[in-house]
Amino acid sequence: MTATLLERRYKTLGPYSPLFYDEPLEFVAAHDVWLTDARGEQYLDAYNNVPQVGHCHPRIIAAMADQAGRLNIHTRYLNNHVVDYAEQLLGTFPPELNRVLFTNSGSEANDLAFRMVRQATGASGVLVSDFSYHGHTSYLAGLTTGLRTGEALAAEVRPIRIPDMDRTTLSEADLLAASFAEVDAAIESLDRAGYGLAGFLFDSLFSTEGLNTLPAGYITGVIDRVHAAGGLVVADEVQSGFGRTGTHFWGHQRIGAAPDFVTLGKPMGNGHPIGGVVTSSEMLDHFGPHNNYFNTFAGTPVSAVVGSTVLSILQDEQLPQKATILGASIKESLEKLRAEYPFIGPIKGTGLFFGFEVFDDEARQTPSAGRTKQLVEAMKRNHVLISRIGRDDSVLKIRPPLAFRSEHADRLLDALKISLKEV
Amino acid sequence: MTATLLERRYKTLGPYSPLFYDEPLEFVAAHDVWLTDARGEQYLDAYNNVPQVGHCHPRIIAAMADQAGRLNIHTRYLNNHVVDYAEQLLGTFPPELNRVLFTNSGSEANDLAFRMVRQATGASGVLVSDFSYHGHTSYLAGLTTGLRTGEALAAEVRPIRIPDMDRTTLSEADLLAASFAEVDAAIESLDRAGYGLAGFLFDSLFSTEGLNTLPAGYITGVIDRVHAAGGLVVADEVQSGFGRTGTHFWGHQRIGAAPDFVTLGKPMGNGHPIGGVVTSSEMLDHFGPHNNYFNTFAGTPVSAVVGSTVLSILQDEQLPQKATILGASIKESLEKLRAEYPFIGPIKGTGLFFGFEVFDDEARQTPSAGRTKQLVEAMKRNHVLISRIGRDDSVLKIRPPLAFRSEHADRLLDALKISLKEV
Repeated sequence: MTATLLERRYKTLGPYSPLFYDEPLEFVAAHDVWLTDARGEQYLDAYNNVPQVGHCHPRIIAAMADQAGRLNIHTRYLNNHVVDYAEQLLGTFPPELNRVLFTNSGSEANDLAFRMVRQATGASGVLVSDFSYHGHTSYLAGLTTGLRTGEALAAEVRPIRIPDMDRTTLSEADLLAASFAEVDAAIESLDRAGYGLAGFLFDSLFSTEGLNTLPAGYITGVIDRVHAAGGLVVADEVQSGFGRTGTHFWGHQRIGAAPDFVTLGKPMGNGHPIGGVVTSSEMLDHFGPHNNYFNTFAGTPVSAVVGSTVLSILQDEQLPQKATILGASIKESLEKLRAEYPFIGPIKGTGLFFGFEVFDDEARQTPSAGRTKQLVEAMKRNHVLISRIGRDDSVLKIRPPLAFRSEHADRLLDALKISLKEV
Repeated sequence: MTATLLERRYKTLGPYSPLFYDEPLEFVAAHDVWLTDARGEQYLDAYNNVPQVGHCHPRIIAAMADQAGRLNIHTRYLNNHVVDYAEQLLGTFPPELNRVLFTNSGSEANDLAFRMVRQATGASGVLVSDFSYHGHTSYLAGLTTGLRTGEALAAEVRPIRIPDMDRTTLSEADLLAASFAEVDAAIESLDRAGYGLAGFLFDSLFSTEGLNTLPAGYITGVIDRVHAAGGLVVADEVQSGFGRTGTHFWGHQRIGAAPDFVTLGKPMGNGHPIGGVVTSSEMLDHFGPHNNYFNTFAGTPVSAVVGSTVLSILQDEQLPQKATILGASIKESLEKLRAEYPFIGPIKGTGLFFGFEVFDDEARQTPSAGRTKQLVEAMKRNHVLISRIGRDDSVLKIRPPLAFRSEHADRLLDALKISLKEV
């Protein structure tokens, strides 16, 4: 059955569209934090962040179906739903971030943010982490450093190494100084090359990089340098937003950053395609008068009602608060496991995005992509979905829906205990 | 009420997000080909092509809600819905166009198609109509010629004038020869500049341009020249696809074009955000192995089921066939009106995308943006929604949902007769 479906997929979508696992999983149903495969087996979802409030949440389906039966139209006519949603969304930001442009994906959001950044600054140079991914448009492919693309890095992009206290022999102060020196050199190089500095783009969790443990003051120091050089700051909240990190609704708030643009995607519609760019009226004034910008699907009543329902559920079910508590408790349990398994490296992450680095050896010297992959496959055999990230593919990526509860955490940890014995 | 909503909109979305009409319409409900405003007034929709099978179609809502309650997940796990839909969609194309990559919008589709085109050819030069719009990403902004953008035209883009038999004093043969000479010169210029020719992008209706009446053999001649120079051809079906032109399911088929890529958007999900790139396995082989391309929201079970339901409704309700008959009948009525009104220019378009040019004077010499705008506003007062297009903003843009029937056509023509007396 699955083999036939796979063949049919290759003959329509082609053989390159990525699939998880040595033997792909075929899912037919989902609810809450559970997915059911074609054989009727249940899997605990500790991976998917798009269904942020849980798979197939009944409030979202009801709201979506109700609105789809009333009106779904673009924003060149007035409708109250997009304005209601914009107010609700902007209410989660400080007052200076007071404008939103809706899109259909995080890729569209990052691409649009950089159109705005380049037009506002008149410059084109970009600082970006040297192992990151922010979307799939032509422009964003030119600044992709953490994923295979057919395009070379664009000439006006300067990749910078994001420091990681878990991966250095330097003191925190020395690491910070070295990192700032790299940023200064990159800005100077953009200036010399005539590009100037347009912006700095970052994911506050540094999730693609492997959930770096930053030296204190790193991001605020980079932002100061970017602003001093006339550049703007874009916080990509596709991974870290909507309560994922627990303590703060937006990931950049956790590290004290005050960005000029915030980009939104994945969990925003719990699976319905929505993204957005949040910025200030001043920034919008640099862009609006010069661009007849319009996005056909974005901000329709259905997308607005779905987005609004996601925000309401996050609040009503207190999911970020619960993520803080549960995430901390899971990290404690992981620390205990680390004491038992010498190949487990530092416990990483915050809220409900966490993991640990996996090493080849007891001395914790060589990151082990192989053992990490084995762990992910073993977890699958134990019916728990996770994945892996990091520049060496050696960090577990555990990032469940925020509907995850303590009984699910127990199930996750039980499966991890069994799986660790198998690798 | 509307004033307050408008103020709230300005304070959240900003003042630049485009709105139709001198005084914007606020809609609260829709069904079939009718929209209801906040005062309870009904408007006949003769403009919107996104709700291709009619507003709030019950089959789509039922299918979407049903699937959203079962499973909605990305394509890195197997699911049958995306494969079923891909097979159904590819079944509307000739056998050589046998692969599809799903996206969330027409912009994402055109952007992705050109990533593939550039990687397949190793060239970057683009031929595009000198008055066209194909999307809002950074890359597509660089080849936008028919809409205000803050970006200059990209250095590797050569705009070409699309000939229009309705706007020339030349014979068809001379116009064709002049147009081909322009294409040859553009290709040569790209070659000289070192960009080479990557591709040619066109909308077979030339809708932004004003529904040009092409000299016979124009597009096939351009395509021959593009292929001879090693370039590839992208047919943008965002406007002309899904039966819009009546006689052919895809607009490019109507003019005998055989593109290498076809891009899809607007009507594909009847308002649900879906787009796609259709191409051959050979073209995909140039891209797939070198790019870890993945699109989080695209091809989910909900998007696939919605897209599939749109295709089924188009077929079950025989909407393209009806569009052929109704479109021809409306054009006949417009020809009669033209005999009465000396300022009405040539009747344009095909299927259910049509209009006519509006002139200032009886000699039909000067296109009249002002009178066209007055007509659009008068039609609104008569409760029918249309718009205007063209390089002089002087062509009526009438493009109703394909659910439009003869009683609606009568209503449209009655309103037009009244409105023509008012301008």
